[in-house]
Amino acid sequence: MIEMRPIGFVRSPYSETKQIPKGCGAKHDVEGVLEILPEFDQGLTDIEGFSHLFVLWVFHQAEAFALLGTPPTDDRPHGVFATRSPYRPNPIGLTVVELLRREGLLLHVRGVDMLDGTPILDIKPYLSSVAEEKLTRGWLAEAEERRGSRPGR
Amino acid sequence: MIEMRPIGFVRSPYSETKQIPKGCGAKHDVEGVLEILPEFDQGLTDIEGFSHLFVLWVFHQAEAFALLGTPPTDDRPHGVFATRSPYRPNPIGLTVVELLRREGLLLHVRGVDMLDGTPILDIKPYLSSVAEEKLTRGWLAEAEERRGSRPGR
Repeated sequence: MIEMRPIGFVRSPYSETKQIPKGCGAKHDVEGVLEILPEFDQGLTDIEGFSHLFVLWVFHQAEAFALLGTPPTDDRPHGVFATRSPYRPNPIGLTVVELLRREGLLLHVRGVDMLDGTPILDIKPYLSSVAEEKLTRGWLAEAEERRGSRPGR
Repeated sequence: MIEMRPIGFVRSPYSETKQIPKGCGAKHDVEGVLEILPEFDQGLTDIEGFSHLFVLWVFHQAEAFALLGTPPTDDRPHGVFATRSPYRPNPIGLTVVELLRREGLLLHVRGVDMLDGTPILDIKPYLSSVAEEKLTRGWLAEAEERRGSRPGR
């Protein structure tokens, strides 16, 4: 067992999960704030220089996990490790956000898909991407093809 | 406090951190295996269709954290959240790997930069990238410029 604790909390316009866009064509360009706890202030040094960040956070409202689940993008079940389901053995969420500006302990970002009050575990700089032409996206690409759409992320 | 537990372990050729390529120009094309625990087998359903995965894991040899540190890529200190330092308040590592093939509970992957025996917390499909032309990489780009090199990741 490994113990984790919040380094801060997300401020977002979403108070309920049903408000968060999901599935095919979902756009995540909503702005929010990563509010870091004062004791971790120094850890933010030089973060302003990065355009994009990985945010690791807790699905704090997910009470149990399910190894198989049917995502909003499909009508067929898939393994939890092949989806972004909140019902994970370790309920960690991962979001790439665009850093708009820093104001002390507040990181103003674009692209939040977390609930207001979500505990943040870690922030890392986004350094490089896998080229789009090298990516394959398995069941998700097939589900999109059946539905004739392409998600925003 | 949030409790996490391993869903599996990394098999990698690295038994000591000094063997892992770091810093400017480091290439991570080494092959390894993500060995998932039998109880999570069903969670791997349909993972074969994805070319790339996010692996979340534990820096299990990092005993304490430091909010400021000087990375191998630079001679100046930066905040932990602006680096990939192992000495993080929550010692979670994040690696993008290429999935080569699945053999039951074994995911053969390329791009491991973890020690052999590293506990795995989660695996997620890599769905899309930030376009390279939209990325800025702050202190890292400046450090590279001073050294006249560009890292492999």
